[in-house]
Amino acid sequence: MDVFVLFSGGKDSSLSAILLEPFFDVTLVTCTFGFAETWGAAERVASELGFPHSVMQIDETVLEAAYEMAISDGYPNRAINHIHTCALECAASGHAVIADGTRRDDRVPMLKLPDVQRLEDTRKCAYIRPLLGYGRRAVDALVNVHLKIEENESEKIEKSDYEVELRAIIKERHGHEMVHTIFPGRHIQSRVIGRRSLGV
Amino acid sequence: MDVFVLFSGGKDSSLSAILLEPFFDVTLVTCTFGFAETWGAAERVASELGFPHSVMQIDETVLEAAYEMAISDGYPNRAINHIHTCALECAASGHAVIADGTRRDDRVPMLKLPDVQRLEDTRKCAYIRPLLGYGRRAVDALVNVHLKIEENESEKIEKSDYEVELRAIIKERHGHEMVHTIFPGRHIQSRVIGRRSLGV
Repeated sequence: MDVFVLFSGGKDSSLSAILLEPFFDVTLVTCTFGFAETWGAAERVASELGFPHSVMQIDETVLEAAYEMAISDGYPNRAINHIHTCALECAASGHAVIADGTRRDDRVPMLKLPDVQRLEDTRKCAYIRPLLGYGRRAVDALVNVHLKIEENESEKIEKSDYEVELRAIIKERHGHEMVHTIFPGRHIQSRVIGRRSLGV
Repeated sequence: MDVFVLFSGGKDSSLSAILLEPFFDVTLVTCTFGFAETWGAAERVASELGFPHSVMQIDETVLEAAYEMAISDGYPNRAINHIHTCALECAASGHAVIADGTRRDDRVPMLKLPDVQRLEDTRKCAYIRPLLGYGRRAVDALVNVHLKIEENESEKIEKSDYEVELRAIIKERHGHEMVHTIFPGRHIQSRVIGRRSLGV
């Protein structure tokens, strides 16, 4: 049974892929709008983890709509959720089983149950969130066992999540300050650099 | 890493154990109040699946409180959730990582997020719900691959879930009719009779 896992190269989507691996044929998929080349980091992590990887092009109108939301709200959450929903719909168009790295304690991106059911019903797909039943303590324990991690401040790490292209379009149109206004503060982000146990 | 999975012998808790198996040392645990011998069915399924199994005695005051709720409400949901919460607390007293078979679309038993966080914080445990991110379509697909199932009407199947002892105490004190009033209708239940793929 094939599963296509939306993949940013981060530890949550990496761990999700590892949890699915014994039960599915896993392919990792990274989204891009083509606005900036952001999927390279994810591709390298996928290779380190030993999973096949592909890049999924999403229509740039989705990024435009998300940009409008972020500027209008002065805050990125609604925009990121919008991108995530569109990415899932795009993935579900081609694949019967899709997945992502959403954790129990995540705020964004996070689909509400009715939106999950709508996605599955309209696209005739199964949408799996392997980490939804895992809290921070359990995720950390599994990450320690299965992944090699490097931690750093958010902006110094090359990432392939939705935020990168959203930041890029805001920076291009409004400058660096607006990016800092909409994405306040820096927080420590982790980078997956390899796998501790290859296969299970 | 050890995990103790609350186990009724049903397909959800069986599948949860199978999903955890590649990553944890799984022990299945079935609760009893000692009011009726209900854990035998779960013990047999655990043996068929190839997992170690133990029985956990829960204080009968928990069943008494649940009985009062069910009679007062005329409906079993609050009572079953109460038993489930107490069973998790009991399991967490002895074990650092606990789990159950709660699915995304379940209504009961289902702990709300603040109750999950309270459980983890007060008991210093990790509480994992491997199927929380799985909907009906994905669960059915995995069950078909991994479990041998027999389907039948609810009351004809020997089960080890909380409902059995709750039904038994209501029947003893109020008779058969009250059981039917509080648990309206029969629904098809499944029984796990074996495993299709031993180990992964």
